[in-house]
Amino acid sequence: MSFNTTGQLFRFTSWGESHGPAIGCVVDGCPPGIALSEADIQPYMDRRRPGQSKYTTQRREPDRVEILSGVYEGETTGTPIALVVHNVDQRSKDYSEIAAKFRPGHADYTYDMKYGRRDPRGGGRSSARETAMRVAAGAVARKVLDALVPGGVSVRGALVQMGPHGIDRDRWRWEAVDENPFFCPDPQAAERWADYLDGVRKAGSSCGAVIEVVADGAPPGLGAPIYGKLDADLAAAMMSINAVKGVEIGAGFASAALSGEENADEIRIGNDGRPIFRANNAGGVLGGISSGQPVVVRFAVKPTSSILTPRDTVTSAGEETEIVTKGRHDPCVGIRAVPVGEAMAALVLADHLLRHRAQCGPPLDPIPPLKRD
Amino acid sequence: MSFNTTGQLFRFTSWGESHGPAIGCVVDGCPPGIALSEADIQPYMDRRRPGQSKYTTQRREPDRVEILSGVYEGETTGTPIALVVHNVDQRSKDYSEIAAKFRPGHADYTYDMKYGRRDPRGGGRSSARETAMRVAAGAVARKVLDALVPGGVSVRGALVQMGPHGIDRDRWRWEAVDENPFFCPDPQAAERWADYLDGVRKAGSSCGAVIEVVADGAPPGLGAPIYGKLDADLAAAMMSINAVKGVEIGAGFASAALSGEENADEIRIGNDGRPIFRANNAGGVLGGISSGQPVVVRFAVKPTSSILTPRDTVTSAGEETEIVTKGRHDPCVGIRAVPVGEAMAALVLADHLLRHRAQCGPPLDPIPPLKRD
Amino acid sequence: MSFNTTGQLFRFTSWGESHGPAIGCVVDGCPPGIALSEADIQPYMDRRRPGQSKYTTQRREPDRVEILSGVYEGETTGTPIALVVHNVDQRSKDYSEIAAKFRPGHADYTYDMKYGRRDPRGGGRSSARETAMRVAAGAVARKVLDALVPGGVSVRGALVQMGPHGIDRDRWRWEAVDENPFFCPDPQAAERWADYLDGVRKAGSSCGAVIEVVADGAPPGLGAPIYGKLDADLAAAMMSINAVKGVEIGAGFASAALSGEENADEIRIGNDGRPIFRANNAGGVLGGISSGQPVVVRFAVKPTSSILTPRDTVTSAGEETEIVTKGRHDPCVGIRAVPVGEAMAALVLADHLLRHRAQCGPPLDPIPPLKRD
Amino acid sequence: MSFNTTGQLFRFTSWGESHGPAIGCVVDGCPPGIALSEADIQPYMDRRRPGQSKYTTQRREPDRVEILSGVYEGETTGTPIALVVHNVDQRSKDYSEIAAKFRPGHADYTYDMKYGRRDPRGGGRSSARETAMRVAAGAVARKVLDALVPGGVSVRGALVQMGPHGIDRDRWRWEAVDENPFFCPDPQAAERWADYLDGVRKAGSSCGAVIEVVADGAPPGLGAPIYGKLDADLAAAMMSINAVKGVEIGAGFASAALSGEENADEIRIGNDGRPIFRANNAGGVLGGISSGQPVVVRFAVKPTSSILTPRDTVTSAGEETEIVTKGRHDPCVGIRAVPVGEAMAALVLADHLLRHRAQCGPPLDPIPPLKRD
Repeated sequence: MSFNTTGQLFRFTSWGESHGPAIGCVVDGCPPGIALSEADIQPYMDRRRPGQSKYTTQRREPDRVEILSGVYEGETTGTPIALVVHNVDQRSKDYSEIAAKFRPGHADYTYDMKYGRRDPRGGGRSSARETAMRVAAGAVARKVLDALVPGGVSVRGALVQMGPHGIDRDRWRWEAVDENPFFCPDPQAAERWADYLDGVRKAGSSCGAVIEVVADGAPPGLGAPIYGKLDADLAAAMMSINAVKGVEIGAGFASAALSGEENADEIRIGNDGRPIFRANNAGGVLGGISSGQPVVVRFAVKPTSSILTPRDTVTSAGEETEIVTKGRHDPCVGIRAVPVGEAMAALVLADHLLRHRAQCGPPLDPIPPLKRD
Repeated sequence: MSFNTTGQLFRFTSWGESHGPAIGCVVDGCPPGIALSEADIQPYMDRRRPGQSKYTTQRREPDRVEILSGVYEGETTGTPIALVVHNVDQRSKDYSEIAAKFRPGHADYTYDMKYGRRDPRGGGRSSARETAMRVAAGAVARKVLDALVPGGVSVRGALVQMGPHGIDRDRWRWEAVDENPFFCPDPQAAERWADYLDGVRKAGSSCGAVIEVVADGAPPGLGAPIYGKLDADLAAAMMSINAVKGVEIGAGFASAALSGEENADEIRIGNDGRPIFRANNAGGVLGGISSGQPVVVRFAVKPTSSILTPRDTVTSAGEETEIVTKGRHDPCVGIRAVPVGEAMAALVLADHLLRHRAQCGPPLDPIPPLKRD
Repeated sequence: MSFNTTGQLFRFTSWGESHGPAIGCVVDGCPPGIALSEADIQPYMDRRRPGQSKYTTQRREPDRVEILSGVYEGETTGTPIALVVHNVDQRSKDYSEIAAKFRPGHADYTYDMKYGRRDPRGGGRSSARETAMRVAAGAVARKVLDALVPGGVSVRGALVQMGPHGIDRDRWRWEAVDENPFFCPDPQAAERWADYLDGVRKAGSSCGAVIEVVADGAPPGLGAPIYGKLDADLAAAMMSINAVKGVEIGAGFASAALSGEENADEIRIGNDGRPIFRANNAGGVLGGISSGQPVVVRFAVKPTSSILTPRDTVTSAGEETEIVTKGRHDPCVGIRAVPVGEAMAALVLADHLLRHRAQCGPPLDPIPPLKRD
Repeated sequence: MSFNTTGQLFRFTSWGESHGPAIGCVVDGCPPGIALSEADIQPYMDRRRPGQSKYTTQRREPDRVEILSGVYEGETTGTPIALVVHNVDQRSKDYSEIAAKFRPGHADYTYDMKYGRRDPRGGGRSSARETAMRVAAGAVARKVLDALVPGGVSVRGALVQMGPHGIDRDRWRWEAVDENPFFCPDPQAAERWADYLDGVRKAGSSCGAVIEVVADGAPPGLGAPIYGKLDADLAAAMMSINAVKGVEIGAGFASAALSGEENADEIRIGNDGRPIFRANNAGGVLGGISSGQPVVVRFAVKPTSSILTPRDTVTSAGEETEIVTKGRHDPCVGIRAVPVGEAMAALVLADHLLRHRAQCGPPLDPIPPLKRD
C-alpha cells in the first residue's frame, strides 16, 4: 500500500506538515557501500529552497538536512536512511479564516471530506513544503544510479513553458538553466519571462508552467511489461507532485497527430556496433521498458491557487463567502517544481534499477553492441 | 511489487501471451456478496473485441470469458476471482522475421535487452491482446462501484481526437458514442473520421488518438495525500495501456496557460445545501483526493507501429535492414483503447474506494450537504 | 497487500475452490531463461497427490498441471507463469448439512462471520486442496534456486512426529523418507506409525504431526534486518498452511531452556578458510539473515478436524446440534503437508534470493573463505 | 516490499541504530480523529525501558517519545505519524574488538556477509534497541483498536517460562504481571525465578524465555483465507522480534499430540444467543480468520548471546580467536520482549482491522448472536 510511500524496492516514505516541528523521510532499500553525507544532499535542497528570488515564496527556510541513520563511516550500510529537516520559519499567524473557508483550487475541501478534519496551518500535509523531502531522497537516488550504472545517469530538468510562453528549442543550453531564476534553458525566453512574471505577481495573479526532465545514461531494460512499466511509474511520480495536471513521455500528446511512419523511431547501427535511433518520439521507453535512449518526461503545473484576487467560495458551515489568500506564495509554483521533477525521476529510475537487478540480475551494461566481429 | 499486478486492495493480476493457449487474470480483494456472472462481463468484452468493423484488426476472437473461482450461487464470496479467455484465432504464421528483426516503435528491442529473449508470436506479452483481461476485470470493478456507492458510479469513455482531427464539444452526446465504430461523441466528426481513416488504412499507414474517460458519481474523499493520490494512480493506469504516451486530468496541459483566477474552480452552495463548483478545471481531483465532481482523464495513444510502409531497422545480429509489418492490425489502435481506458478508471476507483473504507470507514455518502437547518 | 498472494519479488497468487472447475496460480517475477516444463512440476504434484495410500483421502485427482503462459521454447520469458489444474473428482454430494452447521475446528464459522457466506462444497477456498498450487509454484521456485545459486539448493522435508510419537534422530536417513507412506526419515518409527495410524483411522479419529524442512545450500545473506527477516517470512509461510499451529527455527522452543553458552553456535575456520559452526541451534538464521548453514524449520499440524466421531456444534441459525463429518478425509493431514512445507520453504528462499540481488547485487557466492593467503 | 516496514494498511516503518543520534518510526494509514498524545505512548515505553531492575541492561535511556507529525489539536489527521526517541546513553566505548570479531549467536557474521559492512556500535541496527519503536507504534495501534472496536481490545502479555522453569496456570493472575520484574502472572514462580536469574547473572551466563500474548475483544472476521491469514501475520510479527526462535497459536505444538476429538473446540449457544466455544485450542483463529475467542500467541526467546563466558569464534580476517562480550546486557532478554510482543500483536490486529473494513466494510460488531427471536 502506498499512502505516503513511493517505490517498490528503493522506497521513500515521507512525513510532516508545513508548520509542524519538522519534515522528514525514510529511504529504505538503499544498497550498501554507497558514499553518502549531508553534503551530497544539501546542494539539491538549496536549489529548491524558497526565498531565493522575488519569484518564489519569501518564507525563509534554511532547509538544512540531517542524516539520522543508515550511514556509517561515510557509507550507506543497507539499513534505512532517515532524513530530517527542521522547520524554522513557521510564521505565527491566524489560520482561523483558512480553517473555516475552502480555498478554491486547494485541497481544503477534499481533506475535510475525506478525513473530517485537516491541519490548516500553511496547508498542513498538502503544502508543497513536503516536496523538500522528495528532493532529499532524490539526491540519494542519484548516488545509487551513479554507483550502479556504468557511466552514471544524469537527470536534469528545465522549465520549457511559463504561462502561455514557450521556448525556442534551438536555443536550448543546459548550462543556461542555472543562469536564471526560472531554470529556463533558453536565455532569451528567460528574459521575457522575467517581465511576464513581474506583471503576474504585481496583478496579484499567478501562472502555470511546463517542466521537462531528461535522464541520460539510463540503461536499457528498466521497467516491466504491464503494471510495472517505467513510463507508468514516471507518470504516477510526476502526477503526485503538487499542482501537476498532466504528464507525457517523448512526443506525448503530439504523437496522436503523427502518422505511423513519422512516429516510429527507425534504427540504424553505429560504428561501434550499437543501435542508433533516428529519433526519440518514444521518449526512451518502448513497451514500458527503457531503450537506452534519453528518458524524456514533461509535466504541466497549474497556476498557484493562492492568489490575491478575491474568489468566491463557501465555508465549512455552508455559507457563501469569498476569500483572498494573503501571505507568502510563489506566483509560479512550477519553477520550484523543476528540482522536484528531477528528484522524482531519479527515485523512479533507482527503484527500477533495483527491480531489474532482482529479476534479471546484473550487470546492467551500457547499451551493448549488437554486432560483434 | 507490481510486475503484472495493479491495485492495492482491489487487485488485478493478468497473465498470458497473444498466441498462447489462453489469457487470464485474477481479481483479488473483491468484496463478498456482489452479484456476478459471465453475463455481467461479456458485454464489455464484446465492446473491445477485434474484428467488428473494417477499422479494427481482422483477428477473429470470440473473447468468451469464463469465471473459474470466487463466485458461488451467483455472488462473489470474497475469495479470488479467476477469469480466463481461451485464444482461438492464433493464425499459424511464420514469425521468424519478427523474431530476428526489431520492429520500430515496438517493444521487441527492449524485451530482448531486458530478458535476453521474447515470445515473438503476435507480440507475446506486449500485445494489446492483454487488454482484454483489463476489460474483464474492469467489469467486476464496475459491479463493486455500483454495489458500494449509493447511486452508483458511471464510467464512460469517448474518442475525442483521431489523428489531427478533434471534435466539437458542443455536439457531445454520450449516446452517439455507441452509434459509430469510433466511440466518437460527435456524430459529424465521426463521419469525417470514417473518410480520414479509410485513407490512412489504404495508404498502409496509421494514426494516433486521444481518449477521454469521465466517471460520474465517484464520492468525495477517494485518494490519499501524497503517494496514494487518485490522480497519480489514474495516470499510471492509463500510461500502462499499450501505446499511451500522455495523460492529463481536468484542464491538463492547458492549465499551464491559464491564470490563477481562471483555473481555480469557485464554489457556491446549491438549494440542497451541497457545494456546487462553477467549473471543473481540477477534473474532480484536488490534492490527490476526489471532490465529488466528475473525474475527467484524457490520454494520448500513439499511431499503431505495425504499418505496411517499409521502415529502416536492424536485426538482433546487428545487421541493418528494413521491415514491413504485414498481418492484421488496427490502423488506429486508439479506438479499441476506449473500453480499456474505461476499465482502468473503474479499477482505480474501486481500489481507492476500498482504500478509503480501510482508513476512514463507511459509509461513503454522496456529496453531503454542508448547510443544514 | 496479500489476500491470496505471497512473496514480494518471486510472487505467487493462488485461486480456486475445492469443488470448482479448476484451481490455479500465477507465478510472477520469475527470472527469464530458466528451463521449465510441466515435467519439472508434475513429480512434486504426484508426491502431494491424494489417494495414494490408505492413509490419505481417497479423493482421486490426477492433479495434472498445465503451463498456460510465461514459457517459450522451454524457457521462462520473465512474464507471468500461469499454472492450472482441473478438478476431476468433485463427487456430487449433498452439502446442505455442512452449509447449515459449523464444523468444529473448521473455518466454516469464521468465513461466515467475515464474508457473510461461504462455498460449502468440499470446504471451498479453505480446503487443503489449495495447497496443490503451492507445490506447483514451489517446483518453479526450486528451478530458480538451482539456476541462480552455485551448487543449487536442496529443500527436503520429513515427518518427525505423528500424534505423540517421535523419531530417533540417530536413525535419520533422507532416502527413507520416500520409502514409507509417511515421509518418515526413521524406518523403524514408520513401521510403528503404520499401526498407530490404522488404529486412529478405524476409531474414526485423527491425529496431528510435526514436519521438519531443511534447506541445504542456501547462500548467506538472504533476509533483511527487521521486517523482511528470512525467519519471519518462513514462519508466516508455514503458518499459512492449513491446520498449522506452530513454527520454529533451529532449536526453536527448546532454546528457551538452554544457557547462553549452550545456545550460541561457536565458529571455527576450516581447512578451506571457510567458517565452520560447531552447532546449528540458530537453524541457519542470525538476525533474520541466512548464515550459510542449513536452514531448519519445523511446524506443527493439528489433527484433522473432519472426523467420524460426533461433535457438538451449532447451526447458522443458532440451534444446538451435533455433526459427523463423513466423506473422504486424511486421518493425519500432516502427512501431505510435507511436500507443501518444502514448497513454501522453496518459495520463500527464491523470493529472498531476488530481494537480495535487488539490494546487494550478485553474485551470491557460496560461503566465501574468510582467510585468504 | 518489506525491508523495514510491517503491516499492509496500518503500516509501521522503523529506522535507527543502537548508538546513532536517534531511533524513530513512521506510522502510516492511521485513521483520522483518534485522540493521541505522547502521554498515550510513554507508559508503554516506560514498561520496556532498560535499567529498571538489576535483571535488565543498565543502559540508562529515558526513551522519551516525541510526535513530530500527523496529530493536530490532539487528534490524528490521517497523515503519517512520525515518532522519534533521541538516544542519550551511547556510552563512548571502543568497538574495535566487536568490529573485527563475529560474536557467536549474533548477527555480526550475517550482516557482514549480506552488506559487506555493519555498524558495530552497540549492535547497530540489529540491536534490541529498535524494539522501542515497535512499542511506540504499538501504543498507537492500541488506540486504533479501542476506537474502532466496540468494547475495545485488550492486548496483554506475560512471561510463562524462564529458562527451564514454567508457571502454574492455575495461579495465573493478570494483575500479578505488573507486581514483579519479570511480567510473570504466577507470583510464586516469580519468586523462584528471581533466585534463578540471580544465579544466571552472577555466573556470567544467560537464559531464554517463553512469552504469551492474549488479545481479548478482537472481533471475528479478521484475517483472510490464504496468504493474509491472521495467524501467519502474527507468526511473522513475533518471529521478527530479536532472538525469537519459535511461535505458536493456541494449543500450538502440543496440538500435534492431541486427537481430533480433543482438539476441535465444540460450540454451544449461550443465553444471549451467541456461540460459546468449549475450549480454545484454536487460539482464536480458524482458517486464518479470527473467531471472536481470545487470540493466544506464544513465542520462544533464545538466551542472550552476549555473555561473559569466553566463546570460540573467528575474526573477519579468518583467524580463530575467542570473545567475551562485556558491557551492559540483559541476562534474560525475554523479559523485555513482553511489551514488545504485546505491541506486535496490537499492530497486526490493527492492520487486519483496517484490511477487514476495506473488503467487508463496517461495522465490526462484537460477536453477533446467531439466534434471534
